[in-house]
Amino acid sequence: MRLTLAEPSYLKESISIISDLVNEARFKITPNAIELVAMDPANVAMVVFKLLSSCFTEYDVKKDTEIAINLSNLKQVLRRASPKDMLTLELDADNMLKVTLKSNTTRTFNLPIIELEEKEQKVPDLKFPVTIKTSSSILNEAIADVDVVGESVAFIAEPKKFTLNAEGDLNQAKIEIKEDDATKVSTSSDEKFKSKYSIEYLKKMINGSKLSEDVVIQFSKDYPLKLEYKAVDKVMLSFILAPRVEND
Amino acid sequence: MRLTLAEPSYLKESISIISDLVNEARFKITPNAIELVAMDPANVAMVVFKLLSSCFTEYDVKKDTEIAINLSNLKQVLRRASPKDMLTLELDADNMLKVTLKSNTTRTFNLPIIELEEKEQKVPDLKFPVTIKTSSSILNEAIADVDVVGESVAFIAEPKKFTLNAEGDLNQAKIEIKEDDATKVSTSSDEKFKSKYSIEYLKKMINGSKLSEDVVIQFSKDYPLKLEYKAVDKVMLSFILAPRVEND
Amino acid sequence: MRLTLAEPSYLKESISIISDLVNEARFKITPNAIELVAMDPANVAMVVFKLLSSCFTEYDVKKDTEIAINLSNLKQVLRRASPKDMLTLELDADNMLKVTLKSNTTRTFNLPIIELEEKEQKVPDLKFPVTIKTSSSILNEAIADVDVVGESVAFIAEPKKFTLNAEGDLNQAKIEIKEDDATKVSTSSDEKFKSKYSIEYLKKMINGSKLSEDVVIQFSKDYPLKLEYKAVDKVMLSFILAPRVEND
Repeated sequence: MRLTLAEPSYLKESISIISDLVNEARFKITPNAIELVAMDPANVAMVVFKLLSSCFTEYDVKKDTEIAINLSNLKQVLRRASPKDMLTLELDADNMLKVTLKSNTTRTFNLPIIELEEKEQKVPDLKFPVTIKTSSSILNEAIADVDVVGESVAFIAEPKKFTLNAEGDLNQAKIEIKEDDATKVSTSSDEKFKSKYSIEYLKKMINGSKLSEDVVIQFSKDYPLKLEYKAVDKVMLSFILAPRVEND
Repeated sequence: MRLTLAEPSYLKESISIISDLVNEARFKITPNAIELVAMDPANVAMVVFKLLSSCFTEYDVKKDTEIAINLSNLKQVLRRASPKDMLTLELDADNMLKVTLKSNTTRTFNLPIIELEEKEQKVPDLKFPVTIKTSSSILNEAIADVDVVGESVAFIAEPKKFTLNAEGDLNQAKIEIKEDDATKVSTSSDEKFKSKYSIEYLKKMINGSKLSEDVVIQFSKDYPLKLEYKAVDKVMLSFILAPRVEND
Repeated sequence: MRLTLAEPSYLKESISIISDLVNEARFKITPNAIELVAMDPANVAMVVFKLLSSCFTEYDVKKDTEIAINLSNLKQVLRRASPKDMLTLELDADNMLKVTLKSNTTRTFNLPIIELEEKEQKVPDLKFPVTIKTSSSILNEAIADVDVVGESVAFIAEPKKFTLNAEGDLNQAKIEIKEDDATKVSTSSDEKFKSKYSIEYLKKMINGSKLSEDVVIQFSKDYPLKLEYKAVDKVMLSFILAPRVEND
């Protein structure tokens, strides 16, 4: 296996974001893509990541390969890649992942491949009556707004309108995002769909905005949330977040 | 009551500066201005703030209104206002202050109005034989200089010269600011006027430089100091600081 | 003695770098230069600093003078010098070092001259079969790379190639720097020269890159390392670092 990226930023940013949620994970390297599906240790959030072979200038994968890696370890190494570096990933004879950064110097890092007891995660089959497409920065601002107020936020969708609502011990915040050029709200019916999510988790997930200017938000009543960041033919990073079901 | 600012920065910066000194305070909203007079908890410093109605694009105040607010709470909400937001302040039926930030989204924050036992503060009637007008950045640099050395600084005025003097356990610092295009020093007589002030407080007060390029400094012998930052027809933020009277 | 710098940055940066390694030190002021030779408290690293009289717009030194100073104290004062300030150093009647910063204001700092028991340090006479000249930024990047991995790094020189090698509990890193326009590698023979050094110390020393775009690296087998940063006719800052001799 030998994979070379002329532009390391998609891999670098993705691993940095994922490692905020998951410490160790298994990559599946197929002839089409590098894939990762992982749960956070608290079993509240799932990450689904795919870096397509079309991103790579060299993509030599004969057969499906699985390697488990400590992500904060990998993140630290990838942080050393600058935009001018060619980044190559290889499997070493000694069961190490070899990361080579090549510019005027050649820098090689060997990372241990770890044993991961956890069995393979499957992406759950979810049905979403609500799909909102908006700019990543609008969602980022809204999450920063509700973060001033509380620990959880209600996502509320109705035709042509997406609302975020948070109530803290003292303050309340309400962010209304109406359908316009930047935002499309699709719901399967005229009713209101409402579900609550942890702001702490959302703050980690919205870093996906580093990969894409747009985000697709999907949810239902008291149901998991899915956020998807995508750069066509390059990278897809999505998150599934369990709802907070409370009596209120 | 309904007040709208097209440019939220004067309010935002002022509250951020004031909340470094005062935690809870009462605003008086009159047909002419929003005003605040407050003492810091240690009774060492007073803040006097006035945001004139001419700053607002909409200023609908029928009668004088007083509302007490937790300032760090308000600061956190105002921090969410970006320069492109229209900011509206209203009084809610539920005794909440409603802050609306409107751009492509509409974001509403409700803050509780609090009970403040403290009675109204009156600005003391002070006579200042010394008035120095200089650029805010000159005063900022001088305070940063003396901060290297000690905890208190002597302000010394004499005709055509303003001197700051600090002595620490080890070092001494002396900053001489002579009258020139940027600085005017007026004293009521030819004598020297000297008084000492806490550098810790001064460091908070000189953030008023975010509102105005100039500052007016007034004091006398072993007497309170007044710093005033003003943007004509818009905002006035001044501080009164008790002297440190020590045997030295 | 009276010394004036129109451009204080060489002195300011040098003292800031040196004070990371040495807390108190003795300056020798001769008619040609300000010089400093000092060991770090752990006796692992030596600093040799020379600021030439040609840097100064005024350099009035009648006879050799020695003054010992607390460097973090001096650093804090020099940090207050902005590029537009004229910086003057004088010896005060009260056995103080007087630092004057002059622009539109005149700012004077007095620092105590301290007693230093330690006797004068002598620069050891070292023979280096290896001399590498490269750009400071290449060395900086290489040290940042190995810092991800471990606590010590092996410097390895052979004809036309300079390699840095680090092994941590988990990862390994290898940086290969080949001779090219930016890098020259001279060795006295065809053999490999290898020696290990502390990354913690190297991280402090490579701040010398603030003084010069190039660095000269000299070492031998299990032998001290010398790093030299130089701006011709102005400033020279070099470091000598003891090797880490381990069984590996």
